[in-house]
Amino acid sequence: MLSVAQYREAFLDYLNKKVVTKEPVNLYEPITYILNLGGKRLRPVLVLMSAEIFDAPYTKALDAALAIEVFHNFSLVHDDIMDDAPLRRGKSTVHEKWDLNTGILSGDAMLINAYQLFENYEGPVFKELARLFTRTAIQVCEGQQYDVDFESRDDVTIDDYLKMIEYKTAVLVGASLQMGAIIAETTPQCKTAVYEYGRLLGIAFQLQDDYLDAFGDPETFGKQPGGDIIENKKTFLYLKALENAGSAEASQLEHLYSIDPTENSGKIEAVKSIFESSGAASLARQEIEKYTQLAFDVLDKIDLPAPKKELLRKFGSSLMERQV
Amino acid sequence: MLSVAQYREAFLDYLNKKVVTKEPVNLYEPITYILNLGGKRLRPVLVLMSAEIFDAPYTKALDAALAIEVFHNFSLVHDDIMDDAPLRRGKSTVHEKWDLNTGILSGDAMLINAYQLFENYEGPVFKELARLFTRTAIQVCEGQQYDVDFESRDDVTIDDYLKMIEYKTAVLVGASLQMGAIIAETTPQCKTAVYEYGRLLGIAFQLQDDYLDAFGDPETFGKQPGGDIIENKKTFLYLKALENAGSAEASQLEHLYSIDPTENSGKIEAVKSIFESSGAASLARQEIEKYTQLAFDVLDKIDLPAPKKELLRKFGSSLMERQV
Repeated sequence: MLSVAQYREAFLDYLNKKVVTKEPVNLYEPITYILNLGGKRLRPVLVLMSAEIFDAPYTKALDAALAIEVFHNFSLVHDDIMDDAPLRRGKSTVHEKWDLNTGILSGDAMLINAYQLFENYEGPVFKELARLFTRTAIQVCEGQQYDVDFESRDDVTIDDYLKMIEYKTAVLVGASLQMGAIIAETTPQCKTAVYEYGRLLGIAFQLQDDYLDAFGDPETFGKQPGGDIIENKKTFLYLKALENAGSAEASQLEHLYSIDPTENSGKIEAVKSIFESSGAASLARQEIEKYTQLAFDVLDKIDLPAPKKELLRKFGSSLMERQV
Repeated sequence: MLSVAQYREAFLDYLNKKVVTKEPVNLYEPITYILNLGGKRLRPVLVLMSAEIFDAPYTKALDAALAIEVFHNFSLVHDDIMDDAPLRRGKSTVHEKWDLNTGILSGDAMLINAYQLFENYEGPVFKELARLFTRTAIQVCEGQQYDVDFESRDDVTIDDYLKMIEYKTAVLVGASLQMGAIIAETTPQCKTAVYEYGRLLGIAFQLQDDYLDAFGDPETFGKQPGGDIIENKKTFLYLKALENAGSAEASQLEHLYSIDPTENSGKIEAVKSIFESSGAASLARQEIEKYTQLAFDVLDKIDLPAPKKELLRKFGSSLMERQV
């Protein structure tokens, strides 16, 4: 087994070898660009690590790892268009650097390229990977649609929100881990359990990401906090605060989520104060803890030697050990 | 064997049964909408017909036929965004009726849905269909990119143009026919030949479509003629006219392709007159004839009983018998 850093390096070597700009250049250059913007490469590392945990060499999992990363970046390119985002990882987004049409078409080609990468697997493994990938990709689209819908809905429930982050984020984490298990041709029980570990960890991770968006330390969180509040995002914090606050406080929160001031710091502080006083902040921390624990409970029951479970647990812990 | 009209009807029954709006409604409603806008359903009919010609019941080919139609409509939804087209088959395009984001995301879901439909096929057939589909889908994207690139290039050759229409249009016709052959598990020779028949016929068809865009009878062609000329499209007619015209006429044509008058009828007539006088119109008719003949030559050599070849030939002839 390699370290996370070594898997990442092996993955990046493979990416650099396989992702090259070919003709027509205007289609493939944006793909090379977005795939080289960096990022933590969490999902492909999970594919490689999972393959080795279930006793296949990680080299067999490189194509699936690349497919997952290409798909993830496809969704970023199209989401950035939908969010009208100028920047991604501090650099211009594809539709900004080129144009709208390039963003759409290069994204489409990436989605198809992801499928192409699975062709290097034999019969039953190929079909199992393709099925899992298709189901996951559809869920990611549905999650994105729910996210868009939430903007104009005023009846979003906590369950709606949890389903949205599960589809938009968590299922791809589960699928990454399951792909390694499929390539290693392990038991159905192991395949299901490792998916479940990833799915639950993915929900915990996204809940935490939303929590840190309000309460994270700007020094360490990596993005300017308060973005979700500025955009009036109906996160767990917001929905829980509305549910738990007294009627005066709830009205104030709804008012704050209806305005769009030129200077946001007052709005951010007022919203955060309601998140705290309503108990929503504390309940969010509990929810993160709950999903993390659920993930580890699933991990405990997987039929694997203790040292291998420990690797998966350590990876999960390191993901969740950002500064809550 | 059924008639073309009967295959179309069987396909539409299946489409109506399988394509239903589910949650999230805002993702799936545009898909139901575009798939019910009508059209000749040529590609799915080819899948069904090809399956029966190679001795499989057409019912086995319905999922592949639907996949091809869903993919074709995915490409229409995204192309309409790129072309900023308000209408498709006389109705609002998806991005017009909803919005840009809906067009992008529903299109993405359609591309994934197409893959999902292949899951109903067993191991080797599934893989063969998925591979063919992926290769074809990539080519369609590349063809669309070449088409976009041509707008700003002044060095487009006839070969460039032929490759563009091959990728953008013809390969999907070939793939439709080959899918039927794959489902029927016929010989590799038959699979290759029937693809080639479709590809050559597809090129002939698109050449004719471009020819009719300039010279078709508005009564029977179905769209207002001159659209390509208004948009300064570098079609076979334009490229051949530039190649063959004298320098004065060529300069005039280049000038006409650089202006954008509010009233287009003068420009259209002047361009058409150069297409005729340069010999390009006549050469286009010859090129259409050449590719149609090449297609029929391939058909002649396919290892099939004469009455079955006749069905494929009749379908091809009826496609090409529009009023040139």
